[in-house]
Amino acid sequence: MNAGFADIEQMARQARAAAGIVGVLHTELKNACLLDVARRIEAEAASLKQVNDADVAAARAAGLPDAKLRRLTLSDAALQQMADGLRLIAALDDPVGRVVKEYSVPSGLRVRKVRSPLGVILMIYEARPNVTVDAFALCFKAGNACLLKGGREAARSNQALCELVRAALGAHGVTADAVQLLTTSDREQIRHLLTLDQYIDLVIPRGGTELIRFVHEHSHIPTVQHFQGVCHIFVDASAELEPAVEICATAKSSAPAACNAVETVLVHEAVAPQFVPALVDRYRRDNVEVRGDVTACRLAPQVRPAAEDDWGREFLDLIVALKVVPDLEAAIRHIQTYGSNHTEAILTRDAANAQAFVERVQSSCTLVNASTRFNDGFQLGLGAEIGISTSRIHAYGPMGLEELTTQRFVVHGSGQTR
Amino acid sequence: MNAGFADIEQMARQARAAAGIVGVLHTELKNACLLDVARRIEAEAASLKQVNDADVAAARAAGLPDAKLRRLTLSDAALQQMADGLRLIAALDDPVGRVVKEYSVPSGLRVRKVRSPLGVILMIYEARPNVTVDAFALCFKAGNACLLKGGREAARSNQALCELVRAALGAHGVTADAVQLLTTSDREQIRHLLTLDQYIDLVIPRGGTELIRFVHEHSHIPTVQHFQGVCHIFVDASAELEPAVEICATAKSSAPAACNAVETVLVHEAVAPQFVPALVDRYRRDNVEVRGDVTACRLAPQVRPAAEDDWGREFLDLIVALKVVPDLEAAIRHIQTYGSNHTEAILTRDAANAQAFVERVQSSCTLVNASTRFNDGFQLGLGAEIGISTSRIHAYGPMGLEELTTQRFVVHGSGQTR
Repeated sequence: MNAGFADIEQMARQARAAAGIVGVLHTELKNACLLDVARRIEAEAASLKQVNDADVAAARAAGLPDAKLRRLTLSDAALQQMADGLRLIAALDDPVGRVVKEYSVPSGLRVRKVRSPLGVILMIYEARPNVTVDAFALCFKAGNACLLKGGREAARSNQALCELVRAALGAHGVTADAVQLLTTSDREQIRHLLTLDQYIDLVIPRGGTELIRFVHEHSHIPTVQHFQGVCHIFVDASAELEPAVEICATAKSSAPAACNAVETVLVHEAVAPQFVPALVDRYRRDNVEVRGDVTACRLAPQVRPAAEDDWGREFLDLIVALKVVPDLEAAIRHIQTYGSNHTEAILTRDAANAQAFVERVQSSCTLVNASTRFNDGFQLGLGAEIGISTSRIHAYGPMGLEELTTQRFVVHGSGQTR
Repeated sequence: MNAGFADIEQMARQARAAAGIVGVLHTELKNACLLDVARRIEAEAASLKQVNDADVAAARAAGLPDAKLRRLTLSDAALQQMADGLRLIAALDDPVGRVVKEYSVPSGLRVRKVRSPLGVILMIYEARPNVTVDAFALCFKAGNACLLKGGREAARSNQALCELVRAALGAHGVTADAVQLLTTSDREQIRHLLTLDQYIDLVIPRGGTELIRFVHEHSHIPTVQHFQGVCHIFVDASAELEPAVEICATAKSSAPAACNAVETVLVHEAVAPQFVPALVDRYRRDNVEVRGDVTACRLAPQVRPAAEDDWGREFLDLIVALKVVPDLEAAIRHIQTYGSNHTEAILTRDAANAQAFVERVQSSCTLVNASTRFNDGFQLGLGAEIGISTSRIHAYGPMGLEELTTQRFVVHGSGQTR
């Protein structure tokens, strides 16, 4: 047996025991812990930055790309955002114990469906130390213990942040095992961890497609999937063209690599002669490369011909695909063929078309006359977000506090037998 | 490649395509199909029984135990129950399209959370032909396509029932691919099926522990787990003793092998001298064997000493374990150690103890002053039940129509960008 297996099992067992405690903590005590973590982050900002500097320096020396270095860096702003995020989560309603339904049945039993914690959540994520604190805060507020496995480039930062959280919990008499950091990067050990379904209830992998595939492939524990965001916008014949240009443009340019950025714009042929040149011109000013079908190329000479694999592709960059379609039906069929069930939008003034679109395109979020960029826990009013699920099981779409709980039956009787 | 792999993939692909159609059918059309299936079962009862006779005769010759032969047999009563079940499901509210939440957010977006089908559901079950019709009906009403894999002893009956359902769908212009029967029993083919997560959204194995373990071990698709029902009743110091005897006795004797039957009775030591002899006497009259701890054996000489592995055991028979505990805390600890998260009950007149019990014992169903036998979709008012989940993901407890759906976001805006 791999030497690290015993350590890993020990941590998972401790997490299970901690879940029994965290699951029944009073809301006030959970909030006090969250606020204390926020205070400690502010108070220890200087030393946290110093530890983080070592991670960043090592990662830069190892050649980590700039985009990843930025996500690894704990700037003053990043630290403040973490502290603010903790206060925001402390201010959210506690989902645990919430009565979802209550009714009586003919036998006289009083039935309640009550929100309860999931138990132990394993988060696996890349080198983004802010996730260490965010994930803990969401799991903890929802009454769960968590096991955290962050990218190894952030090892020192994660260790410092996790110790800080554990100290805050300890100061309030709460078991520090409610949050534990896994420091191994041994693939065999991670695979072993993914078999421990007697201790772990849910796995949330957050990061690149390769990481998610590895977890999905090897996990014997239910896993939230979020493979790709291949988001589409359909510009219908009746769309208001000026706002449509604005929506399509910003849905890519405001965050080209975000999972809710638009990847393919579909345009109804009736408005294409007017709309395509206007949109392509706007994209050109935003430095967005446009790859189009034959008709789009004909309507706007700056458009490069799209290759077959540009349809259904998550570009993660300032690139967008553009296609002219004969009608709503063709747009829906394109989305059903190439979409990833993440986010789709229709821009239209035709209520019947809007209705048909949101009924038949069953992505985690479908929008009418708004940007795909709104599929986000904060923007949709969840108050926070631990990830966006594109599988339909347990949760579909952005996952907030409620999605980190389950519902169980609590039944009161007066001696009923059966 | 195994020769059957291509056939299996073809069926799964067809199910995915059918799901796109079934997911948007009008409620009236779905109900008309269900009622038509009920009528056809009644009209073709004689020929269904004839086909079933062949299954039963072959299974008897092969030495299938009596209990399994009973479940395999389509009696007049069993057929009528299937027809009645279909009418009942037709009468239930359609969960698809139900608006679960609706609110506006500061950007002006109007956000709705809407119930939607899961997509394609794979049911794997033992030789119980009624499940073929029940599972189809629940999946279909909730807008899902289903793949059915029943026990091979029921092959002829399942084939006849599935053809009947497909004919009814066809008569209403609905694609027959909404329900497909897998006739293979090749383990390699089943394992391959369990990797097709691009076509199948959820697997529900229903049957023995071995079947569920096989599916759980090999599935790359989210799977509903229901391993065991190791249910406990705790008789508190303040319990009304006569009703408590009645509840503990019937919770075993009314259905000794049911998953919600009681397996271990825990008795507070303050009432044990009075309660244990009374309960043991009642169990004796019901032919229930009692295996007890040292104290229980001392209080009632008919009690046999329990072995260590009798705690946490699902006897599936007229056997029950009995233990005297010093207090509520010890009862909760025993349940946390030996329970299976299925169903637990407390019998008490003490409201604080009842509250502590239902808060700390987070089984899929906890009951106060009622039998564990009420953890059942019909008894809890769900109208129907496809199984009871003991894992906390997606659904926890009895799964009805609603649990065969997911929720997605539908958002209406007026040109919002981000």
